[in-house]
Amino acid sequence: MLYTEIPTQRPVTPLLDGIDHPQQLRQLEQGLLPQVADELRQYILYAAGQSGGHFGANLGVVELTVALHYCFNTPQDRLVWDVGHQAYPHKVLTGRRDRITTIRAKDGLAAFPAREESEFDTFGVGHSSTAISAGLGMALARRYQKDLCDVVAIVGDGAMTAGMAFEAMNDAVAHDADLIVVLNDNDMSISCSTGGFAKHLAAIWETGQLINVNEQGEAYVQPHPKWTYNSRLHQSATDAADNLFKAIGFDYFGPFDGHDVEQLVQVFHALKKRKGPRLVHVYTKKGKGFAPAEADPITYHAITKIAPVACAPAKTSSSKAAPKYSDVFGQWLCDEAAQDDLLLAITPAMCEGSGMVQFAQQYPERFFDVAIAEQHAVTLAAGMACEGLKPVVAIYSTFLQRGYDQLIHDVALQNLDVTFGIDRAGLVGEDGPTHAGAYDYAYMRTIPNMVIMAPKDENECRQMLHTAYHYKGPTAVRYPRGVGTGVEIQQQMTALEIGKAEIVAEFNQDVEQQISILAFGSRVAASVDAAAQFANQYAVGVRVVNMRFVKPLDEQIIRELAEKTNLFVTVEEHAVMAGAGSAVNEFLAQARIVKPILNLGLPDAFLHQATHQQMLADCGLDSQGILASIQKAWF
Amino acid sequence: MLYTEIPTQRPVTPLLDGIDHPQQLRQLEQGLLPQVADELRQYILYAAGQSGGHFGANLGVVELTVALHYCFNTPQDRLVWDVGHQAYPHKVLTGRRDRITTIRAKDGLAAFPAREESEFDTFGVGHSSTAISAGLGMALARRYQKDLCDVVAIVGDGAMTAGMAFEAMNDAVAHDADLIVVLNDNDMSISCSTGGFAKHLAAIWETGQLINVNEQGEAYVQPHPKWTYNSRLHQSATDAADNLFKAIGFDYFGPFDGHDVEQLVQVFHALKKRKGPRLVHVYTKKGKGFAPAEADPITYHAITKIAPVACAPAKTSSSKAAPKYSDVFGQWLCDEAAQDDLLLAITPAMCEGSGMVQFAQQYPERFFDVAIAEQHAVTLAAGMACEGLKPVVAIYSTFLQRGYDQLIHDVALQNLDVTFGIDRAGLVGEDGPTHAGAYDYAYMRTIPNMVIMAPKDENECRQMLHTAYHYKGPTAVRYPRGVGTGVEIQQQMTALEIGKAEIVAEFNQDVEQQISILAFGSRVAASVDAAAQFANQYAVGVRVVNMRFVKPLDEQIIRELAEKTNLFVTVEEHAVMAGAGSAVNEFLAQARIVKPILNLGLPDAFLHQATHQQMLADCGLDSQGILASIQKAWF
Repeated sequence: MLYTEIPTQRPVTPLLDGIDHPQQLRQLEQGLLPQVADELRQYILYAAGQSGGHFGANLGVVELTVALHYCFNTPQDRLVWDVGHQAYPHKVLTGRRDRITTIRAKDGLAAFPAREESEFDTFGVGHSSTAISAGLGMALARRYQKDLCDVVAIVGDGAMTAGMAFEAMNDAVAHDADLIVVLNDNDMSISCSTGGFAKHLAAIWETGQLINVNEQGEAYVQPHPKWTYNSRLHQSATDAADNLFKAIGFDYFGPFDGHDVEQLVQVFHALKKRKGPRLVHVYTKKGKGFAPAEADPITYHAITKIAPVACAPAKTSSSKAAPKYSDVFGQWLCDEAAQDDLLLAITPAMCEGSGMVQFAQQYPERFFDVAIAEQHAVTLAAGMACEGLKPVVAIYSTFLQRGYDQLIHDVALQNLDVTFGIDRAGLVGEDGPTHAGAYDYAYMRTIPNMVIMAPKDENECRQMLHTAYHYKGPTAVRYPRGVGTGVEIQQQMTALEIGKAEIVAEFNQDVEQQISILAFGSRVAASVDAAAQFANQYAVGVRVVNMRFVKPLDEQIIRELAEKTNLFVTVEEHAVMAGAGSAVNEFLAQARIVKPILNLGLPDAFLHQATHQQMLADCGLDSQGILASIQKAWF
Repeated sequence: MLYTEIPTQRPVTPLLDGIDHPQQLRQLEQGLLPQVADELRQYILYAAGQSGGHFGANLGVVELTVALHYCFNTPQDRLVWDVGHQAYPHKVLTGRRDRITTIRAKDGLAAFPAREESEFDTFGVGHSSTAISAGLGMALARRYQKDLCDVVAIVGDGAMTAGMAFEAMNDAVAHDADLIVVLNDNDMSISCSTGGFAKHLAAIWETGQLINVNEQGEAYVQPHPKWTYNSRLHQSATDAADNLFKAIGFDYFGPFDGHDVEQLVQVFHALKKRKGPRLVHVYTKKGKGFAPAEADPITYHAITKIAPVACAPAKTSSSKAAPKYSDVFGQWLCDEAAQDDLLLAITPAMCEGSGMVQFAQQYPERFFDVAIAEQHAVTLAAGMACEGLKPVVAIYSTFLQRGYDQLIHDVALQNLDVTFGIDRAGLVGEDGPTHAGAYDYAYMRTIPNMVIMAPKDENECRQMLHTAYHYKGPTAVRYPRGVGTGVEIQQQMTALEIGKAEIVAEFNQDVEQQISILAFGSRVAASVDAAAQFANQYAVGVRVVNMRFVKPLDEQIIRELAEKTNLFVTVEEHAVMAGAGSAVNEFLAQARIVKPILNLGLPDAFLHQATHQQMLADCGLDSQGILASIQKAWF
């Protein structure tokens, strides 16, 4: 069935209602599976409308999920979902049907598979391309324990470009591991897939044949059945008939229609008779079964929660006047590029998320989407900088963790002129702990040569990006997820002085007792609020400094303030441990300034999903929390 | 010529002596190139004997290096050497012939290519698998600037297993980049290569044919010439005739004899007539031309400086009684494994360096060399831990940077029971800044759930590894390069109390003024020395605490000491920024203990090579330096 609307009433799903454990699915006649899949699709449509969240990928794996749980003895057999954008059907079939509408909400189901949530969630994920490694670990562990089971890693074609998937395939062959990899090929990650691997999949497609497996587990070649859809048009194929998976040593089967649940069941049953590393290539359609998502899978990658009547993809849901930081970045990128031909921009498969769509259209020859490949993205920029160009890498804080070594060695050690626009820094709300950017100050500020900035608002973000770009050396501007504060954005770009903070608020400056709040980035505004309230209540001087630079710190202002400060407070949306406040502590120690200091920031814990605001409040980083902490420290 | 001895007198090299710039090489008749190569090999043998350093890989690329500089217009054309273990011949041919004997010494040539050293060193390296990314960046930058040149990335077969090489190949095809990759296939990285990729290279080998290129740049297939050596015996081939490089979209040529300089010249000249991503597969022999190294390439990966008569590979050069920390780790691993069947051990291609040879022989079914694949190594361990096994990952501090995201998400976030033995932590001497482990406290201590230890000596290292192994959750023990302090190693293993420090020295405890030195890991002994000297000179109480744990800190002891401490000093072999001392600062702030504190550690700079002791002295981290810093802070 092809649906055109997201139901706002719970659909009627008699078969699905009887499945509280996949064992009940496995007791059904095989002929009923298409109906199960149809009910599951309707239910996912309904549930995603209620909760918001990832969407297209989940609709695409409905039949695959049914077939996997039907053929494999879960949870004793291990299903390892890569990324986990696509685990909603899996969650529905494994005892979480009713709770699926709570996904992404505080205290609700996690947005991704999570080990603490269910024994069926064999591996917690969030970042891509880990499933083959994790699945291999499980397979080798079970072999060592002589307690065999089937292990199936389900990996998208987009995730396959990340190097660690290749590392894991290489190693699986080394051990001749009994591991099935399902390549869930929907011709895209979040953006369209790109590169040699995508062209290779197009080449496989164009051969017009598939490698099937019979009931005895033997492989045979047959003509490709006629596909009912074809979305490979944007890919040119490689010339070669050579098969990459076979070359690396996997048995290859496919490509199969990933929406033909009965064929999938037959294939999986047959493949269980074989041993060693096996790859099953299934072709699915992102958004399958929901007409608007099939037509525009990028927009429908995720959707927001819907009101009873309307349905809107996530992209167009912002009703606030203030722009997103991603869009501020994107606009800056276009404006800077217009002024400087040396600017090139790189994204590891996050063109839309990073606000680069306009740039990509306007400057296609200066735009480089390198696929999911963070390590390569960073070193590619280094190579470009070696030739005198000025690359800008747009990357989420959490994903830069994947390019950390390259940031140290390939960029900073060589003091190359690369600018990093670090998005989603700090808490990220509903996506939960795997997507939080809580460690970037810590992992970056230890690196020599780095200059690190954090803006207090969207205009400062623009000016800081300009500053970073014109500074000769490695720089990073880290900004939060979501929208700015609504300030006016100055079109004129003016470079800030490197390492120079600004005092943004002063209250009760005529009294003896004084507090200096050194605030970083997104926490400046809340710090000003807290300072105003505190100064209003007590006869204590309070000033707030927008520190602007985590590295180099404005040591001069700290030194000057120290003379009239009885308590320093640092505030940041980053782990307290090793964070920006910690840098202030280090300077005070080095300058032999012996004063009380209160470091406010994120606690030493992985924080569960909630809204961004809820999370800030829970961490005591909204203005009320900051006020309370200062009161406690002061009195 | 096959040599059997390392010359201690400079060999006679008339052709080589005339080459101060590759332009002079390019003016020679092609027929003279074998003689140039022979002279270069003799000279490398001599020079490596004088300086010590990487050895086998350099001998293996003599002909390749001559052919590359002969065919390409360096430095306008870009040669990008991966890893850089093999750049000695390149340095000799590019104006650094006489200085090559200073390699790895303080103020001498760098052990690896370094941009600040020469315009011929297009990209600084040290870690593997970056060359294709960097070279692609250069090629795309030049194309964008319409200033074309040839870019050649030279990559070993071992380095090809690291995911980022695959990421870069994928992206090179996306852009149809004009890039030549030379796959320098010597069937090993530092250890023997392993996995599907190595088997694939064996399969290519076994086809008995090669893909050649004629003068017009056209490809043709010809029978494989008879090879004069064959070291593929330890590899089983994959079945497939499919070619991985062609599958991903590269033009593939080879495999060629990498020691036939005239054929290489012909191939490179012809390949310049083609465009797009091209891969040239050359087969070389590590240690080529020096009989002992050809016979035992692992031992001869690097050698130590030799006396005028003797010649010894690096492995056997330790004359001190104290064991290397690597060996302490290796012995612990065997002992713990004997007591616990659940122990598995993982290394990313560093079996020898990490001291695991004995374990690998004794427990082959529990030993996993995953090839150069740090990301995969960490997540593989996570997968094993999911099945209730207890993996130990042996990894250098600098290489764990490559698995940072996996450490956060796949291990720590899921609180999985994985033990990390982190070797080469701190300064590493001659290998220089790319191999220093200066950031691990910083990047690890911000991660929730981590327990981080650093031993004061080799016995404590053993006990800490035992402690870490029996702690249920992610743990790391970080220990330095080189040998221990010579203490007795207790065979009996006793778990330390988590988060508990010990006072190791107290001087002048009866006086009022008191200094507390909180020392971490390798700096405990020097701190005790410094404390003794200080207390001997002045009527000041000094105590030294071996902190043992960077996380969790022993907050109780700090709190207790604070009452009688006038100055805290923290000492660590790690960057001051965000390091262990910084963790102490944070606790003092949080506990509202307002005391002067002196943080001693590594400066905010990439440190150039010297001996480990010289570097420690330069950083003020030997006992004299610590003493001087305390004197300065105290008076």
